[in-house]
Amino acid sequence: MIIRKLDDIAKASVDMEGVKGITKQLVLGSGDGVPNFSFRVFTLEPEGHSPHHNHEVEHLNFVLSGQGALMDGNGNANPLGTGEFAFVPPGETHQFRNTGEEPFVFICAVPKEYE
Amino acid sequence: MIIRKLDDIAKASVDMEGVKGITKQLVLGSGDGVPNFSFRVFTLEPEGHSPHHNHEVEHLNFVLSGQGALMDGNGNANPLGTGEFAFVPPGETHQFRNTGEEPFVFICAVPKEYE
Repeated sequence: MIIRKLDDIAKASVDMEGVKGITKQLVLGSGDGVPNFSFRVFTLEPEGHSPHHNHEVEHLNFVLSGQGALMDGNGNANPLGTGEFAFVPPGETHQFRNTGEEPFVFICAVPKEYE
Repeated sequence: MIIRKLDDIAKASVDMEGVKGITKQLVLGSGDGVPNFSFRVFTLEPEGHSPHHNHEVEHLNFVLSGQGALMDGNGNANPLGTGEFAFVPPGETHQFRNTGEEPFVFICAVPKEYE
C-alpha cells in the first residue's frame, strides 16, 4: 500500500493550448501500479482555466479548496466549490475555471491509460 | 455532467462481518453511467473500522476529515489523516480504522463493477 501527502508531490506546470495558470500533481498513477484509474490534483490560480475541450475519457472530481465553475458545451457555468464532486462523461465538452480569489484545487481521476 | 454535494447523498449503514460503526455514501457509481470507476465516501465513527480483509479490486482513497490508520496484512498501523491519499492494490490485506475522536471520512474509489 502507498500513503501520500499532497505537499510531497512535485507540481508540474500544464502547458497546452487553452490553459491558463494550472499546475498538476500526479498523486497516484500508472507508475505506481494502479490497475484501472489514476488520481491527479490540479491547482488553478485565480483567473486560471483548463481548455474548453472534450476527450474520450471521463473525469471524476472532488474539490479540495477554492471556488470554480464547470463550464458545459453550451457555455453554461455550473458552480463547483470546496467539498463538491463532479462527473464529466466521455466526449462531453467541459472547462474548469477558477472563479474565486484563492487557488481552486481539485482531484481529477481518469483511467490509467491517460496518466 | 453531474455535480453533487456530499450532504445531499443518502447514508447507508454498512452491515458486514468485521465492520463497526460505518456508513457509506455512493457519490458517483454505475447508476450514474460512470464508464470505469466509482466514488464512494465512508464515514467511520470513533472506534469504527472496516473488516481486515482482501479482495480483487483496488482502492484509491482521499481523506476528507479525521484521523485514522490503514492496517496492513502484518498488523502494522499506517497513520492516515485529513488531506492524505492512499492506494491499496488488489489482493492486499487491509483495514481502515478510526483512531481519533471525530468521524474519519474518506473517499474510496473502486472499479465500477464493484459498486
